[in-house]
Amino acid sequence: MGWMNDESGLDKCAANYVPLTPLSHLRRAAHVFAGRPAVIYGDHRVTYAQYYDRCTRLASALVSMGVTPGDVVATLIPNLPAQAEAHFGVPACGAVLNTINTRLDVDTVAYIFDHGEAKVVLADPQFMPLAEAAVAQMVGNAPILIEVADAANGWPASGRHPVYEDILTLADPNFAWIMPEDEWESLALNYTSGTTGRPKGVVYHHRGAYMMTMGTVISWRMVLHPVFMAIVPLFHCNGWNHTWMMPLIGGTLVCCRDISADAIYAAIADEGVTHFGGAPIVLNMIVNADEAERREFHHQVEVFTAGAPPAPATLGKIEALGFNVTQVYGLTETYGHVTECVWKSEEWDALEQSDKAAIKARQGVAMPMMEHITVVDEAMGQVRMDSTHQGEIVMRGNSVMKGYLKNPDATAKAFQGGYFHSEDLAIQHPDGYIQIADRAKDIIISGGENISSVEVEAVLMAHPDVSLAAVVAKPDDKWGEVPCAFVELKEGCTGDAAQMIAFARETLAGFKAPKLVIFQELPKTSTGKIQKFELRNHARTL
Amino acid sequence: MGWMNDESGLDKCAANYVPLTPLSHLRRAAHVFAGRPAVIYGDHRVTYAQYYDRCTRLASALVSMGVTPGDVVATLIPNLPAQAEAHFGVPACGAVLNTINTRLDVDTVAYIFDHGEAKVVLADPQFMPLAEAAVAQMVGNAPILIEVADAANGWPASGRHPVYEDILTLADPNFAWIMPEDEWESLALNYTSGTTGRPKGVVYHHRGAYMMTMGTVISWRMVLHPVFMAIVPLFHCNGWNHTWMMPLIGGTLVCCRDISADAIYAAIADEGVTHFGGAPIVLNMIVNADEAERREFHHQVEVFTAGAPPAPATLGKIEALGFNVTQVYGLTETYGHVTECVWKSEEWDALEQSDKAAIKARQGVAMPMMEHITVVDEAMGQVRMDSTHQGEIVMRGNSVMKGYLKNPDATAKAFQGGYFHSEDLAIQHPDGYIQIADRAKDIIISGGENISSVEVEAVLMAHPDVSLAAVVAKPDDKWGEVPCAFVELKEGCTGDAAQMIAFARETLAGFKAPKLVIFQELPKTSTGKIQKFELRNHARTL
Repeated sequence: MGWMNDESGLDKCAANYVPLTPLSHLRRAAHVFAGRPAVIYGDHRVTYAQYYDRCTRLASALVSMGVTPGDVVATLIPNLPAQAEAHFGVPACGAVLNTINTRLDVDTVAYIFDHGEAKVVLADPQFMPLAEAAVAQMVGNAPILIEVADAANGWPASGRHPVYEDILTLADPNFAWIMPEDEWESLALNYTSGTTGRPKGVVYHHRGAYMMTMGTVISWRMVLHPVFMAIVPLFHCNGWNHTWMMPLIGGTLVCCRDISADAIYAAIADEGVTHFGGAPIVLNMIVNADEAERREFHHQVEVFTAGAPPAPATLGKIEALGFNVTQVYGLTETYGHVTECVWKSEEWDALEQSDKAAIKARQGVAMPMMEHITVVDEAMGQVRMDSTHQGEIVMRGNSVMKGYLKNPDATAKAFQGGYFHSEDLAIQHPDGYIQIADRAKDIIISGGENISSVEVEAVLMAHPDVSLAAVVAKPDDKWGEVPCAFVELKEGCTGDAAQMIAFARETLAGFKAPKLVIFQELPKTSTGKIQKFELRNHARTL
Repeated sequence: MGWMNDESGLDKCAANYVPLTPLSHLRRAAHVFAGRPAVIYGDHRVTYAQYYDRCTRLASALVSMGVTPGDVVATLIPNLPAQAEAHFGVPACGAVLNTINTRLDVDTVAYIFDHGEAKVVLADPQFMPLAEAAVAQMVGNAPILIEVADAANGWPASGRHPVYEDILTLADPNFAWIMPEDEWESLALNYTSGTTGRPKGVVYHHRGAYMMTMGTVISWRMVLHPVFMAIVPLFHCNGWNHTWMMPLIGGTLVCCRDISADAIYAAIADEGVTHFGGAPIVLNMIVNADEAERREFHHQVEVFTAGAPPAPATLGKIEALGFNVTQVYGLTETYGHVTECVWKSEEWDALEQSDKAAIKARQGVAMPMMEHITVVDEAMGQVRMDSTHQGEIVMRGNSVMKGYLKNPDATAKAFQGGYFHSEDLAIQHPDGYIQIADRAKDIIISGGENISSVEVEAVLMAHPDVSLAAVVAKPDDKWGEVPCAFVELKEGCTGDAAQMIAFARETLAGFKAPKLVIFQELPKTSTGKIQKFELRNHARTL
């Protein structure tokens, strides 16, 4: 170990050791970028000095409500300024931020209030009935409800709870932030979507969020002052930590209540949005927008996409419109993205568009803040990097969660062997780039052969009439399972199942082609992920 | 503090906590940027895979020479590939890198060998006689000397010592790097130039160097694949940590034995250099280059300058040539730069060139990896930010040294009050930007009034015949001290002291104008800093 013979006087002290926390970014920005625009939402336009002031007031107000360090403060808010402010104001009083998915049912929200032991909940009027119903149903102590009114946009306060702006006005603008004394202290609590059973509470440490912000700047080719549109919900991995990152580079956060092609194009054209992240469904939304929704713009927009590999057909179309798409991959447990498909210009720029798109669908390599991400077999041995052998993606690094709240068994299982286990199946190409074959539970096993649902979906997505496709296993007496496709058609198109199956067989081996095609709107989570468990349940009944 | 009620199972483990170290960057780059150019020096052109291999072999070779973790390995090498390799190969076997200034005298090098207890010294043939003489003079155990021959460039091996390339050839390419178990372990040892008494040994921790690399990328507006020329000697704050940073972004390091205008222009034109750092003397070299030395280039080159505020006149000229200059500031104790003059386009783009240059001479604000940098009075109270009140620059953050080796008293003094004390005097502008008035010891006190030597120098530098100027205190019976100017003229110019004093009085208050002007070449350190202590000694005799 690198300790010298004589290290007397060389210990850590206040001058040379400061716990890593994203809170430092906003404290610095309040000074370095004081006059620059920080957050924009319609007429709400605040500078970094004002943003810092509002976050300070929020922290002070929470303390006066009895919140103490280590307490949980929850939110039920769309991607609006108060949700961003909570990312700083809540930890600035030492509390832990629990952004809750606004699409959840009352029962689950009540479970989260109880399990997380929220002391205060900030809720948008649109979701206040949900918060109230959850409080009524919970077992433990009820949290204080604060209403974040948005009258200018049609959501005035109900009058039943204290109002966010009022408590900020009354709060102390000189409140001294309570900074972490240890960078391992808890910063945020994020519940997984939990397809089966109760959701698990993923706990983030300050250090990990800080490292995410530093590593992402590099990967996302950001220099100073990007204009970032918050499309990924801030209740999903804290919006991939981008809210914590923006003050680091003096960026502007553009907020929006409802995500639509209309709103995205307008933000690009009117606010000069340069960067955003979104699930492939957002890419589809942009590609399939009506002429009336589209707006002209003259800069390249950098898009990070994750959640599922984007279909090559979509990638080809969106890049022609002025967007550069980078595929990233991660999980709630890893604060969001931890791999990226770093583009190799020398090797890949000259390829055909379809080949480029195929490469862009790869999840890629470890981002700078992660130590090691690879694919291993069941004995934790490295799989052969031959584009064929499958294994599980595992990762080690500083942007990995502390663990699951009050669930040491699940935590120990997730960290077995010194790596976080993603439960995603992938291959590695000879250059080490990772490509997801499938979620372990999404793989279809037909006649003993593995079928990647992702592969079948990519083929269907290339059909001109298809807007979205999802393929799941349907139990089958002869084959064990067979692929069953659910297809969402573009407006004005009518589907023909036999024709669609024939189209798939042009490219795929016979056993991989779907045996059944159902045309319907696909069930999605709030983050645009297709809810395959619902489709699987449906497929069982067919 | 932010600990939740129940944190069972949420401790650090191998999956979610990896000690921060710049070694991680090269391990990742060997994989992510395997085929990209890493280091260039004439015909020596290695990819990241090859660079990693060479560093691995160096680590293995050192272990086989008996180096164990915590031991010191020293170097006496110009900015050549082996010097860069030592930055990874030495810590990769757990050892501490001690890059020694090649311009030092035998006595000081012998002191450093003894004080640092070097086990191995890697030396260039040009500096092998210095190493040998120092070994002969030292008191403690002699280190093993390894010669880094450079026959292709006129420096073949002497034949008296093992040769670097030979030991790499024989070493184990599969050696497993010894990574730090604690990010506070020692990474490097850098001796200050020590204008009085023995130099002090500044000890760096792995965490600080890692944070420097992350923070600098952001400040230096770097995206992937910069081409960086190593001009600042790697024995000076490890070249501002840029060698450790390059693998993070897949950059290329361009090496050079002797820095000249010729070499700089050639590297820009032939290798496409995009970034470099250098003292103001390097800027002067570029501005004052002959036509024959200049080369055409068509991209903007980003230059970071530090060591002393660049003269506004130089700044004006160099920007017209295609260089964008950012002033940064730091000390050996802070791993190099920790403040930067972040440019405010909206406010400053429209200013006159001379006003812009005046702003660019400010040291600016804390870089992202630092927590707090400000100016305080003697009671450690914040000075008024009014561009007038002076105080000492103090800093707190993760890129501050562990302390001075075997000197706990000096360490405690430097860290008094929980901040590192720079001993530099500065004012703060109303926006918080710091501007150095002077080194505490460089201030001239005349008739009870403080005179900033920097201010007087800037005025003299604006004179068309002046290449460099340095102003120091000359003892004076009446005034206590008076300013005495030493001026280096441009080629072909002859100086007139009276005319120069009159020129200064056009701008400066009478008491600030130099009372004496001496025309001579200025004594400089290897890093281009003017050696004011020599000039002060000289002034005393005038």
